[in-house]
Amino acid sequence: MTALAATRTGIAALRDAYLRGTLTPGEVAEQVISTPSAPGVWIERVSPESLRARAAELQDPSLPLYGVPFAVKDNIDVAGMPTTAGCPAYSYTPNRSAPVVERLLAAGAMLVGKTNLDQFATGLTGSRSPYGAVESVFGGGLIAGGSSSGSAVAVAAGVVAFSLGTDTAGSGRVPAALNGIVGVKPTRGLLSTAGVVPACRSLDCVSIFTLDVADARTVLDVARGPAAEDPWSRAAPGESLPPAAVRLGVARPDVLEFDGDHGQAERYVAGCLTAARLTSAVTQVDLAPLLEAGDLLYQGPWVAERLADLEEFIAGHADAVLPLTLGILRGGERYSAADTFRAQHRLQVLKAEAARLFTAIDVLALPTIPTTFTLAEIAEEPLRRNLVLGRYTQFANLLDMAVVTVPNGTTPEGRPASLSLIGPAFSEGTLLGLAAAFKGEALDVHDAQPPTVELAVAGHHLRGEARNAELVALGGRFARTTRTEACYRLFRLPTGVPGLVRVGAGQGAQIEVEIWRLPSSAVGALLSSVKAPLSIGYLSTVDGQTVQGFLCEAYAAGDAQDITASGGFRAHRQEEGQ
Amino acid sequence: MTALAATRTGIAALRDAYLRGTLTPGEVAEQVISTPSAPGVWIERVSPESLRARAAELQDPSLPLYGVPFAVKDNIDVAGMPTTAGCPAYSYTPNRSAPVVERLLAAGAMLVGKTNLDQFATGLTGSRSPYGAVESVFGGGLIAGGSSSGSAVAVAAGVVAFSLGTDTAGSGRVPAALNGIVGVKPTRGLLSTAGVVPACRSLDCVSIFTLDVADARTVLDVARGPAAEDPWSRAAPGESLPPAAVRLGVARPDVLEFDGDHGQAERYVAGCLTAARLTSAVTQVDLAPLLEAGDLLYQGPWVAERLADLEEFIAGHADAVLPLTLGILRGGERYSAADTFRAQHRLQVLKAEAARLFTAIDVLALPTIPTTFTLAEIAEEPLRRNLVLGRYTQFANLLDMAVVTVPNGTTPEGRPASLSLIGPAFSEGTLLGLAAAFKGEALDVHDAQPPTVELAVAGHHLRGEARNAELVALGGRFARTTRTEACYRLFRLPTGVPGLVRVGAGQGAQIEVEIWRLPSSAVGALLSSVKAPLSIGYLSTVDGQTVQGFLCEAYAAGDAQDITASGGFRAHRQEEGQ
Repeated sequence: MTALAATRTGIAALRDAYLRGTLTPGEVAEQVISTPSAPGVWIERVSPESLRARAAELQDPSLPLYGVPFAVKDNIDVAGMPTTAGCPAYSYTPNRSAPVVERLLAAGAMLVGKTNLDQFATGLTGSRSPYGAVESVFGGGLIAGGSSSGSAVAVAAGVVAFSLGTDTAGSGRVPAALNGIVGVKPTRGLLSTAGVVPACRSLDCVSIFTLDVADARTVLDVARGPAAEDPWSRAAPGESLPPAAVRLGVARPDVLEFDGDHGQAERYVAGCLTAARLTSAVTQVDLAPLLEAGDLLYQGPWVAERLADLEEFIAGHADAVLPLTLGILRGGERYSAADTFRAQHRLQVLKAEAARLFTAIDVLALPTIPTTFTLAEIAEEPLRRNLVLGRYTQFANLLDMAVVTVPNGTTPEGRPASLSLIGPAFSEGTLLGLAAAFKGEALDVHDAQPPTVELAVAGHHLRGEARNAELVALGGRFARTTRTEACYRLFRLPTGVPGLVRVGAGQGAQIEVEIWRLPSSAVGALLSSVKAPLSIGYLSTVDGQTVQGFLCEAYAAGDAQDITASGGFRAHRQEEGQ
Repeated sequence: MTALAATRTGIAALRDAYLRGTLTPGEVAEQVISTPSAPGVWIERVSPESLRARAAELQDPSLPLYGVPFAVKDNIDVAGMPTTAGCPAYSYTPNRSAPVVERLLAAGAMLVGKTNLDQFATGLTGSRSPYGAVESVFGGGLIAGGSSSGSAVAVAAGVVAFSLGTDTAGSGRVPAALNGIVGVKPTRGLLSTAGVVPACRSLDCVSIFTLDVADARTVLDVARGPAAEDPWSRAAPGESLPPAAVRLGVARPDVLEFDGDHGQAERYVAGCLTAARLTSAVTQVDLAPLLEAGDLLYQGPWVAERLADLEEFIAGHADAVLPLTLGILRGGERYSAADTFRAQHRLQVLKAEAARLFTAIDVLALPTIPTTFTLAEIAEEPLRRNLVLGRYTQFANLLDMAVVTVPNGTTPEGRPASLSLIGPAFSEGTLLGLAAAFKGEALDVHDAQPPTVELAVAGHHLRGEARNAELVALGGRFARTTRTEACYRLFRLPTGVPGLVRVGAGQGAQIEVEIWRLPSSAVGALLSSVKAPLSIGYLSTVDGQTVQGFLCEAYAAGDAQDITASGGFRAHRQEEGQ
């Protein structure tokens, strides 16, 4: 396997080759050094000597990103390299890397360079940079999309195995769509934005580009986590639903616009059909509150949030800023403080509507982009067509959502299509699981600390029984029916409550149980709803698994009716009914 | 007991008299009707006929506020009564009561009237109203404080048993302090602000005035809860700490200012000494980030948030607004959108500092007001002295805190002093518990659904043992040491893990256990950290209580060492060590 091929197949393949000893970081570094780059992708590359030195210093192949080459968008600090944000006059050289970059380096990743972007991360086209416009790997003059243009192309072209972008309005998703790769816009605050040039501080996210979903999860797990110095950092327990438990939402056809791009419309429907087969239910939803929220971003006072940090620089360096970008930023000057509060109050209403939406569905599938444009087409109508590109991405930032964007085939014209899987804050686990299933990848979806548990019920919590509703109300979802190992006896206590007691091997039977998946945080409430002699402990199933589940203390069996012979409480009830 | 006396002793006493049959709502209504009111307290009172009719229609003495007279600040909607917000030209008559009022009425409360306020709830003095300045029940020309002036005096004078105010900068606490009563500024969103004239929508709270803490809890429990139509509603699991578990913070003396009021300074120290005796630890803290946040409210763009809703009205009715209030509101015009975002970004930094503060302490005790003023003193310097009054209240709104304000004696000059107990969002349970202990009240602090549980540990989770740190990390707090009922045997499993097995009466012994208090939501994580044959169920202690606790499945006892005779794992370890 050559290094380039390894990089092209992503992190998992690289790691596999390293662990088998068929590849070294040094070989990958040489390949990266000799790979020609398309014009405009890089603003600064790490020198060959530095990259070789980095490869040579890596000693621990067990690190999750050992020897993995990556790129960083040039609005994110790397110690000792200039941060330009796409504006040479703005450039500064930080002493310290952004905490998110530090985490990647500590995990063994090899930095290849800083990538081009729409100036000040303002734009979705990839054509607004003094370092040159960036073309998609699909060629034909197609835009790469922005603002994280260089980071997306560096991954799609196989120069690096992953890259960091940023996403304030879609900058981490639009270029993924236009280059046929995976883009993750995490929940705001999940990856620290310390050391990132602010666009809209209250909305900014660091984003991730990879070739496949499993790699995105690997990078996310390394990069996530609070930074002490970052007031925007957030941590929250995320609960993951397996794809089969996801209630999918898709757009009502009449609320979608593709600007006449029938190929994209067809790909969206095809993508929804695939996703629907993977999930438990599908609902068509209205997009009106989402689209209204999205419009606030560039057609409301949030433009002035960009100005909040750049006003002073612009005042002194107006001619150093691209005229188009300057015009957009100065558009923020026309909004007053009262306008801002009014818009924030309206947003609060829309947030409440979005929260209601996510009580009915778990994931919303939307096209990432309505259509594609060439560089020439963008030059014709740079502002309007930029707005078109953000139609299905912008709202997610204002409404505090997480998004995973996955390739969704190509149109008859050979243009890339992309599907965005959108969930509420901290739904990354669910989104990555569904995205992997959608891409046909096998993804290991367990978390380091599982936020949900599998719990076996054998009595009144079974479906159709008296206390099942409590289990559902606590967020429980039915997973499967199975039987215990043959070392349990089932009793009916004098109160009528069934209870499972583990006995010695050969002294019990296989008892029917249902396995439910439940938020770990709800186990306490579930226990509080029952009484002695019930407890929640561990039981062994016939297929050799150990799951949490309801047990009964053995001392209580003395007074109880032994119903083991029925094989389960449901069968016992049927016998009773006869 | 006369009706007036009953009202004066609060909700609990009223309820007691109703349930014993010594009082009727009709008698209380007559007494309320015949009670003269101080000038300026009411903007509109319910007619005697309506109040009598309301008393007559009440049928269910089991309702939590059955026959309890209350008042509503006149910026909160009551169906069929004008809402003036202290500005006659602004007045409108709503068809529907605010949801929070509906909840109180549904619980049997009797509305007495709408109370005076600083116009548009802008001010902390109680003197900024065309309906007249309001004097404190302490007399001597002392201001009642505002903006909820009438609501505080109506309670303090015993006309009603509780009242609703609002609190955006201290309006629910400053008047409580100046009238010697209890004020609760709940977490933003815990009580719906639907049907409330907005001041700063993103900060506004409905507040509660009562004579004692137990009554405040009763009203809070009825009034709280989301309203479907209110995008600002929030719900979150609140966990209550008993006072003895609270880590108290008090202000470092050098950061406090009392404007030369030595009597208030003395009362604050006295209050802290009392609170310190009730709590588990005391730390002196800096107030700099809190005071900086407070200053943002009137000396930053949040003034424009008031303008966001009133700009149109003011444009058409400038002469209908008090000149002082108009000047304050128009001050918002000088802030731009960029200014607003910059201030919000700074606030985010201060929020992060406040969050760090509340990892070291649970409750911060501060003076509610630095000093008191007479109406004449306020007239001399209306703006500066208003700012003084808000020094220790304003930041709580911007920093998303909950506050319970309790009387703290009087100064040598006979002026009322007040202590504010301040906690992070959703800490009401903890604050009310400590406030009740501070006032010497017996308060039933359990919640309808207890968010914490008592959990017995008998082995490796005991203090000083291997897994105790996990218990602490999950939010567990040691409560007490006790012994089980004499029906347990203690085993040491082959893995070394101790396990408690319940056996028949007379076949076991009393085993030493520690009782820990743990968030119910952490029980699942605790269970996930152990393995079979351990479970978490219920065990009986020697004092007849049933608590949750670690158990061991009986089947596992076969392979295990029986260490029951040692009386507990700690004693067993000591025997081992010998």
